[in-house]
Amino acid sequence: GQPLLLIGGPCALESEQLARQVAGTLKAICARLGIRYVFKASFDKANRTSLRSYRGPGITEGLAILSRIRHELGVPVISDIHDVSQVDRAAEVLDILQIPAFLCRQTDLLVAAAETGKPVNVKKGQFVSPWDMENAVNKLRGAGGSRIMLVERGATFGYNNLVVDMRSLPVMRSFGCPVIYDATHSVQLPGGAGGSSGGQREFIVPLARAAMAVGIDGLFIEIHPQPEKALCDGPNSLPLDGIEPVLAQLLRIRAAL
Amino acid sequence: GQPLLLIGGPCALESEQLARQVAGTLKAICARLGIRYVFKASFDKANRTSLRSYRGPGITEGLAILSRIRHELGVPVISDIHDVSQVDRAAEVLDILQIPAFLCRQTDLLVAAAETGKPVNVKKGQFVSPWDMENAVNKLRGAGGSRIMLVERGATFGYNNLVVDMRSLPVMRSFGCPVIYDATHSVQLPGGAGGSSGGQREFIVPLARAAMAVGIDGLFIEIHPQPEKALCDGPNSLPLDGIEPVLAQLLRIRAAL
Amino acid sequence: GQPLLLIGGPCALESEQLARQVAGTLKAICARLGIRYVFKASFDKANRTSLRSYRGPGITEGLAILSRIRHELGVPVISDIHDVSQVDRAAEVLDILQIPAFLCRQTDLLVAAAETGKPVNVKKGQFVSPWDMENAVNKLRGAGGSRIMLVERGATFGYNNLVVDMRSLPVMRSFGCPVIYDATHSVQLPGGAGGSSGGQREFIVPLARAAMAVGIDGLFIEIHPQPEKALCDGPNSLPLDGIEPVLAQLLRIRAAL
Amino acid sequence: GQPLLLIGGPCALESEQLARQVAGTLKAICARLGIRYVFKASFDKANRTSLRSYRGPGITEGLAILSRIRHELGVPVISDIHDVSQVDRAAEVLDILQIPAFLCRQTDLLVAAAETGKPVNVKKGQFVSPWDMENAVNKLRGAGGSRIMLVERGATFGYNNLVVDMRSLPVMRSFGCPVIYDATHSVQLPGGAGGSSGGQREFIVPLARAAMAVGIDGLFIEIHPQPEKALCDGPNSLPLDGIEPVLAQLLRIRAAL
Repeated sequence: GQPLLLIGGPCALESEQLARQVAGTLKAICARLGIRYVFKASFDKANRTSLRSYRGPGITEGLAILSRIRHELGVPVISDIHDVSQVDRAAEVLDILQIPAFLCRQTDLLVAAAETGKPVNVKKGQFVSPWDMENAVNKLRGAGGSRIMLVERGATFGYNNLVVDMRSLPVMRSFGCPVIYDATHSVQLPGGAGGSSGGQREFIVPLARAAMAVGIDGLFIEIHPQPEKALCDGPNSLPLDGIEPVLAQLLRIRAAL
Repeated sequence: GQPLLLIGGPCALESEQLARQVAGTLKAICARLGIRYVFKASFDKANRTSLRSYRGPGITEGLAILSRIRHELGVPVISDIHDVSQVDRAAEVLDILQIPAFLCRQTDLLVAAAETGKPVNVKKGQFVSPWDMENAVNKLRGAGGSRIMLVERGATFGYNNLVVDMRSLPVMRSFGCPVIYDATHSVQLPGGAGGSSGGQREFIVPLARAAMAVGIDGLFIEIHPQPEKALCDGPNSLPLDGIEPVLAQLLRIRAAL
Repeated sequence: GQPLLLIGGPCALESEQLARQVAGTLKAICARLGIRYVFKASFDKANRTSLRSYRGPGITEGLAILSRIRHELGVPVISDIHDVSQVDRAAEVLDILQIPAFLCRQTDLLVAAAETGKPVNVKKGQFVSPWDMENAVNKLRGAGGSRIMLVERGATFGYNNLVVDMRSLPVMRSFGCPVIYDATHSVQLPGGAGGSSGGQREFIVPLARAAMAVGIDGLFIEIHPQPEKALCDGPNSLPLDGIEPVLAQLLRIRAAL
Repeated sequence: GQPLLLIGGPCALESEQLARQVAGTLKAICARLGIRYVFKASFDKANRTSLRSYRGPGITEGLAILSRIRHELGVPVISDIHDVSQVDRAAEVLDILQIPAFLCRQTDLLVAAAETGKPVNVKKGQFVSPWDMENAVNKLRGAGGSRIMLVERGATFGYNNLVVDMRSLPVMRSFGCPVIYDATHSVQLPGGAGGSSGGQREFIVPLARAAMAVGIDGLFIEIHPQPEKALCDGPNSLPLDGIEPVLAQLLRIRAAL
């Protein structure tokens, strides 16, 4: 089969130096391990819990950084789009366009993304059943999209909690799309820290192992050199310097299937 | 206290004639009953389950119809906004701007809505706890918004089902905002009908009675002369010709508190 | 229609004096208000969170107290049964046998209860859908039971939380059984206080109003002269000296339907 | 570490011949694979959805069959207990006493089980959080129990559905007890088939792989020579003749950790 895909990087673009450090280090690790690597960081976090939260450098500076990562480091890049007005600019730079989970039912955004001809990675809404994601796939295909990936990132489970229903992975694979497991946002505690969302870092690796054992095409992990200092999603990011043995273990599980 | 507020009308704008019929009839009923009335219909349904679903006349024609309802019938109007680019145009016509539930965490949309100075009605996301809606209120207030209403429309409860947690009504009222109960979308079965969402019309009135007995400031009900022929949300709309006794009963419950 | 039924009293039997005080006071209040009254207290709390929690006086002493309440105060009595071995002894004293929610699928207990010929009040399990309670009704009817009541007491909603799905009330009424709303256990936070369950007293009355407005046949409320000193379920009990205006308001809502 | 434990067999005891066939075959397979094996079948299914469902041979005949399996085939045996009155008889025969999920909070049953000195295997209630299972452990330890196992079998997720929260496995292991993953009941659809519960056999193996990758001490699987003819839980049982490669794959995942 295909080698594993890793979509990884800091949650939000902080400095260009940090982005280069993460992209370069992960590129080298993935080359050693036989993993396809795509750098991910958001240029704008459009749905932070609070007005005062860090949002990123914005689309102009953000895409410029991502473009340099792509051309100078030779690493494909993915980022979130939130609005039809961003789609064309983003498609000029990004290798893959990502639709955030809250926006996975916004028809115009899906259609605009599909019309660029770029691959589109749709995160399953926390409020959507796995089988209903076929409606998102159909919207994309109806607009000419042919390279579509779907992401599991947890389902609403009472208040301020998500649960990963591992059944979603084979269900969504049955639509004929690669399925990515988002190991970071699946352990988010939405709104669980008052003015921001909390996270359960201790469950990132066990749940990633579980998803790998069920069967997935790729992994999404937010990775930061110093998660405790990350400007976004630190509580559910993994440290860069510990990632290689984690990935190696996940590959051993994949090989055991 | 304040008289009850009714936000009512067809889910989507269909013909202008139908909009006038509903607005005029409800205006007369509400005048008889002592209810403040606001006409609601969407100019664009941006998150339908399928590409082939009816979306409405679009922003230009839709706002024109709403403007005529407002000026010629003397009925205040509310409609959904989905995108920052729509906000200013919508604010020129609408009395109240409504933020759809899926978009209740989109910071830019909330900020743009607040900056118009118009009242903003935010629907609680199906994936948001009642207390976390205070974050939406804080974003609006932080951007200068002062007239804010919040809407209960059901919380994700397993797959393809919503549950109304009536505790949300006093929780959200405690933020100092009027709270509206959306009797229509609370009985939606998301994705429950394959390529579209289903609904449980039989529970609209019992749950509206419940919300009224808990204590609310207003009701949101989709009302159509022929719900079975509605182009959107028919299964959870109420028929126009049966609405007056329903409202009268709800007012009796309110008077009993 | 029938007058409202109130099942009320302290969660567990504490002293006989306290039981008499509550039963006598509630009898008088219900007589004034036109409510049918049944005294409830458990002789044994068989599923407390911790071994060290208060359980009650046990079946022998408990039934003796309940018998004296019944004969000396002229108040019908209901209590929980947990085990087939308790059923016959309990049926000699109690007017109604109550099946706890966790045990609502235990076939032998249901059958034994039905075979006594006494009315049986089955609490809906937190893990059971409203429509599946028809299976409990069918078990009771299959064993000769004809006077069956069903109770809503909240459904599991994520961890350490319950939600009341008010749709359950008409669903269960459709089986041809009177439906009781348990205003006390519906606001329990299971396991929410570490070694015991917590409760949200502030929501008891709003949710009881909601259930009344939906339409119910009876109410179950734990009532204690000093809830803060109750040996069980204090956080979700109401104080005896404030109950009359609460009941009066609930009757006004009922009259408004 | 310890070799993997397999608790396996038909849901309910049907004929002795079938029990011997399953126990003998699984004993041989587990010997080849290096798995510790315990035969499981219920002598009584005390909480079937309908009165007409098959319940098993009852305690007297059931324990006699289990005793012969144990002594003649040399296979340890486990079965459910439902009532304090069954505990001593069951403890004379069984190697491990199992507490059903619905009964995991019944203090007397837990205490009686612990007092036999036998190992006790407690299934986590569908309505209980993983951390609250520490209360069950504390009840058992408080009654002298020292060999305690805990079982994940899915959590209530809306109506007629369960979800496996894989986070529960490390949470429950942190209490110092071996943790078993019940691959059969985790894919049950409670009440999902009208008068009986449905099941999703296609998810048994993927979820078992996931649990194994997270880290567990044992597996519980209902295994039947002809699941489609099983008198109980057929839809979520695995066929006996396909089990060896499934177990072999699960061991490969375990070895990859």
